Formats: sequence, C-alpha cells, structure tokens
Amino acid sequence: MRDVYLIGIGQTKTTKNAGIRGRYLAADAIEQALESAGLERDRISMLVTGNMMSGMLTQQQQLGALIADVVGLRGIEAATVESACSSGAAAARWAFMGVAGGFHDAAIVCGIERMTHAGREDITAALATAADWELEGCKGESFISLNAKLMKLYMEAYGVTAADFAHFAITAHDNGYTNPNAFLQKQIDFDTYMNSRMLVDPVKLFDAPPVCDGAAAVILACEDVARAAARSGLPLIKVAGSAIGTDSLALAERVDQLQLSGVALSTKRAFAQAGVSKDDIDLFELHDAYTIITSLSLEAAGFAEKGRGVHFGKDGEIALDGKLPISTMGGLKSRGHPVGATGVYQLAETYMQLTGTAGANQVPGAEVALIQNIGGTGATVISHVLMAA
Amino acid sequence: MRDVYLIGIGQTKTTKNAGIRGRYLAADAIEQALESAGLERDRISMLVTGNMMSGMLTQQQQLGALIADVVGLRGIEAATVESACSSGAAAARWAFMGVAGGFHDAAIVCGIERMTHAGREDITAALATAADWELEGCKGESFISLNAKLMKLYMEAYGVTAADFAHFAITAHDNGYTNPNAFLQKQIDFDTYMNSRMLVDPVKLFDAPPVCDGAAAVILACEDVARAAARSGLPLIKVAGSAIGTDSLALAERVDQLQLSGVALSTKRAFAQAGVSKDDIDLFELHDAYTIITSLSLEAAGFAEKGRGVHFGKDGEIALDGKLPISTMGGLKSRGHPVGATGVYQLAETYMQLTGTAGANQVPGAEVALIQNIGGTGATVISHVLMAA
Repeated sequence: MRDVYLIGIGQTKTTKNAGIRGRYLAADAIEQALESAGLERDRISMLVTGNMMSGMLTQQQQLGALIADVVGLRGIEAATVESACSSGAAAARWAFMGVAGGFHDAAIVCGIERMTHAGREDITAALATAADWELEGCKGESFISLNAKLMKLYMEAYGVTAADFAHFAITAHDNGYTNPNAFLQKQIDFDTYMNSRMLVDPVKLFDAPPVCDGAAAVILACEDVARAAARSGLPLIKVAGSAIGTDSLALAERVDQLQLSGVALSTKRAFAQAGVSKDDIDLFELHDAYTIITSLSLEAAGFAEKGRGVHFGKDGEIALDGKLPISTMGGLKSRGHPVGATGVYQLAETYMQLTGTAGANQVPGAEVALIQNIGGTGATVISHVLMAA
Repeated sequence: MRDVYLIGIGQTKTTKNAGIRGRYLAADAIEQALESAGLERDRISMLVTGNMMSGMLTQQQQLGALIADVVGLRGIEAATVESACSSGAAAARWAFMGVAGGFHDAAIVCGIERMTHAGREDITAALATAADWELEGCKGESFISLNAKLMKLYMEAYGVTAADFAHFAITAHDNGYTNPNAFLQKQIDFDTYMNSRMLVDPVKLFDAPPVCDGAAAVILACEDVARAAARSGLPLIKVAGSAIGTDSLALAERVDQLQLSGVALSTKRAFAQAGVSKDDIDLFELHDAYTIITSLSLEAAGFAEKGRGVHFGKDGEIALDGKLPISTMGGLKSRGHPVGATGVYQLAETYMQLTGTAGANQVPGAEVALIQNIGGTGATVISHVLMAA
C-alpha cells in the first residue's frame, strides 16, 4: 500500500440559489484544486464525486462522468459515491484506495450538492431518505425530528439542559465568522442561541445546520506526484488513515441509541491505520450537523466519557487555541452543510490548518487531525487522519 | 496489487412488483452468494452497493450501510456507487480495488434496483437522469428516444435496415429462455421482432430491455480466502482486469456519435491489465440494453469494423456455440435490466460460464470472458475480464 498525500484544495462559497448548475459549481472547486496543487490536469486519471440528492432534486445522475467531462477530463475513470451526508468523505475513501492501491497516481475528489432551488418540502423529503424509510421515514420522521429524539434522550439520561449545548454552536459561529466561504458568516451569543426558533423540541435553529449549496474538491496523489507538486514552505500533508464504520440506519435498531458505534468503529480503524491515538490529535474536524451529534461524537471517538461529551469544551478546550479545536472553519453549522460536499469541505479546511494557511482561523501548531463525516444519524461514519509530514 | 478472485454469486429472479422491499431482495442475493462461496459472513469486511434510483423511486438512500445491517454485517465498511445503468459494475470496481489494494480480504458487491412499483412516468423520468439533463433530459429526451437517435443515425450512415438488428434480440431471447432467472423467459422469432410495437422510431419493443426489479451479488476475495473456499472440481475465477472509461453524457457533445469511445477506452484498459487481447475472449457479456448499443459495442471493443457491428453474428458467431457468444443468459433484453443490478448479474452469469455451471446455457470451453456494463448512452463504461485460473 502506497502513502497518499492531499496536495490541493478548492472550495466554493456555500450559498443559497447558487444560480449556476451543479456541474459548474463542481468545476469551480476542481479548477481551484488543480491550481492549488500546481498540477497539470493530464496527471489526473480518476475522479470520484460525492453527492446525495442530485437525482432527486436536479434530475441529474451519473455526475462522475459528467463532471470529468466538464473539467476537460473526458475519458478518465469516474463515478459517484452516495452515503447520505457522508457522501463526500466516502468519495475520498474510494479515491484514497485508488491511489494507495497503485491504481492511480493522482485523483480528484469532488463533493457537490445543490438543493436550495427546490421547495422546502422536497428538500425535507430528500434529506429524509438518509433515514430508514420503513422504520422512520414513512412514519413522518425527518432528519430534524430524529436528532430531536436523540437530544431529548440524552438530556433525560444525563440530566442536562438545552443550555448545555450552547457552546458548540457559539464556537462554530465564532470560527465561521472569519471564514469567507461560510454560509452563516456571523457570530452568535448565548442569548441568540437560547432564543432561536424551536424546530422540533428540543432542537432549536442554532442546534441545526443551514441548508445551502456548495462544492469542494481535493486532490489525492502518490508520493512522487506530491513531491513534484510541493510548494516551497508548505509541509506535505499525508492521508495517514482512512476508514468507514457503519451502524443501523434506524435509531430504534441500536442497542444503545446514545452510543454512536459507527463513530467508535470508524475512529478506531483510522487511528490504527495511522498509528496514532487520541492524544496525538491536534484538531477534530467533526460532523457537527446537530449539537447532539457533536456531543455523541466526542464521546464515541474517545475524547469524552459517556454522558460527558456535552460538557467538553465549556472551558475553551474546543476553541482554536484550545486542546482540541473543533469546527475550526465554522463546521456544518456556520460554514454550512451542502450535504454531499460537506466531507470534502472538511478535508479542504483541515489541509489549510495543517499547512498553516488557515489565516484568522489558524489552529497554532496543528500537525495531526481527525476528520469525521457522518451519514444519517450515525449509520455511515467516515474518518480520515491527516498529518503534516 | 494482489490477485482478486470471484468466489460466490447470488441472483434473484428478475421480476415485476417484487412485493418485497429492495433491502430484502438484496439480502436474498447476498445470502445466496455467501452460501455459494461457502464463506462465513465474518470473513466479509466490505460491502459496496450499486444502485441508481432508490432515492428517486423508493425514498431510500444510504443503501450500503442499510443492506450491510440487514444481512448481519452491521459495522463493516459499506457505501453505494452510482453511475446510472452501470452502477452495479462500478460497485464491483470499488470492491476490486478494496481487495486488490489489500484493504479487505473479502468484499460483497450487491447490485439492486426496484422500480416496477412506480408509475410509468416516474420510471421514465428517473431513467432520464442518466442523460445530460441540461442538453437532453430537459428537452424531453428519454432513454428510448436517445437510443432511437443513435439507431437512426447508424442506419442512415451505413445503409442498414431495422431487420439487420433482429439477430441480437433473437439470440438474447434464445438464451434467456433457458435461464430460470430471466424476466422474459421466452423465445422470439424474426416476425415477432419485426412486428413488435414501435416505441420511438426506429426502436421497437424488442430492441429495448424490459423494466424489472432484481438484485444480484458476487463476492470478491484475495487468493488465500479464495483457495480456502474453493469447491472441488470448480476452477478458481480470477478478476484479471477491471477498468472504467468515460465519455460525455450528451450524444451531441461527442466528436463521432457512432463511436462509443468509453467502450474503447474501458476495453483497452481492462485488456492491458489482464494481459489479453480480443482473440483470447471466449465470450463477451455485453450491455445489450438496445440492439444499437450491441452493434456499437462490438465495434468499439474491437470485435467488428466500424459500421459492421450490426452484421456480426448473423452467421451464428454470437450463439452459445459460436466464436463470440454474447448475452449468454439472455442479456439485458431477456434476463432483464434491473438497472443498478445489471452489472452484477452479468458478473454472476459469467462466473457460471467459466465454472461450467451454466447448464443449458453453457458456452463450451469458456475460459476467458469480457463483461461490459454501460451507464447512459455510453458515458460510463465498466469492463471486467474474468479468467478461469
């Protein structure tokens, strides 16, 4: 198995009503990534697209071949990966195998989602396909209602209140405020969080991520290509771990709904592959789709005891200069959650952190990062470990 | 890169209104595959699902994790691949990388499509997402109308008539007649073909594949697992080549619409990897979605001169005992075309041929096969070379 490096990134500003078709959003991100890597496009022989809802909301499937063609790479190996909200990182996982296994020397991973042009009901229905249709979706459960169930269960089990989740949202918005690609580029305070509109009790507006459009791209390459493209002064960024862990889609099918076992499995596998432990992690770019998922992820990934995740970071531990920064560029809450693109934004943002190019959002001295992208309420969990080499 | 073997297969009978949800169709195919391989399920650590329309027609995404859970493999690496009608073979391509690259010792590939419960208009719209929406779909083009354009172009360019395509349909139905899993398990003659209903001139009913539900599964494994599971008397079946080639989605974007360059690229790559040439191929399980695609595939894959593909096999060359049998278990026409499952049916059927277990459909002495699955009108083309080792 060969070493794999992340050598270039591209991100479009997350937005509403992008006004251009998804293919051009994707092309924009890919052009940026090629430019960033300083790589001629003829070095690329694989493109994996991560997307969840293009068929349902924009009548376009087969995005892999389509996007390859749009960016001038007609002919190369291309396909699309879907695993709901974790489609972006799943695409990265396939491309990682493509390079690590020696099938390709350089591959593009492109996450793309365009959804805001659709009606609210259509968006909600499309998102609900991430859940188990027979056991949840057809009973009227939405993504928000399922997370509300989890949050309520957690609050009852551990005797915590809605106010205990506030710092996750506040931190994310603090960081998104200085990220020009963020969708909600604004800070919020405790009162704003507490007084925000109730979506499904106890999930409030600022517990949930905004619906937006976006595309991001990263380029993965073998060592030879990475060294040839290396920019002076920037460290090489190695993809030291890449793993998928899964769980039941339906919450009720799980032995313990407050244990995200997909997160635990996925983290364990990625750590083992990278030869690191939680103590080595300088930042955790987690899937903060809902504040309850942040709490449960911190626990299942091993950074907090069970039932204590919600309290993690109240002393500033999760801030940019804390012990374990999270949502460093705004996370899903503030940067936004363009579903199939989110996992690729996370990888691009972490690349910025590890190369010291995150500007106002820089985590000081960041060398090793855990990145986690989650499909559904924990059914598909994809972890990557990036390391400054 | 490690050698990869195909060690077990499962197929449900293609059918209309399966009556059971897609997950159980998939589980049925997977249970058969595990049984066929004689493999304990705890040896499996990866499952890749191929599917095109589950989100659009059954409100269920994230099939990878879902199906893994349903078959008792909760936790393993799982995701879904989409490349329209070639989704099944694309899933096999990822699993191949997983095993060849040393990431997994045994992986399940499961193709699944359930569509017949939906209304005719919804099915047509869902299938049209395989085309370029901006350039074709939104102008009212359907899958049938695009193939009709190609067929008309071909007939005009080479001065052939509809009757020239008949032998492809007749041969497929001859073979499907003795395949218990086939959807249209019946023979047709020249008159039946010629008098069949006109769908979109010049595409008649028997130029096109039937809409049906189905699931198929194959298990890919490394040599150790394959040898341990080997059944006495059956040869090991090696996946000697695996490749994807792409083209523009839109026909009008191609330099020469009568040249399936994705087929040419994909075939060339798979042949190079397997170290074979067209003369080594004992059977070509091609993507006979439309008789025009059969003609063009035979040409682009190198078995016929340009403009001569339609005449290939008129002397019986494509029959089971011919020089290059095609559609050996009925092909997409007679076995049926459960879209995202088709590529996996093709692999399963070819396994039967190479292990000498194809019964009445046996191709005598078959040792090397080319299998080809196509998304859209040639946009994503996935080729595998299987070889009796």
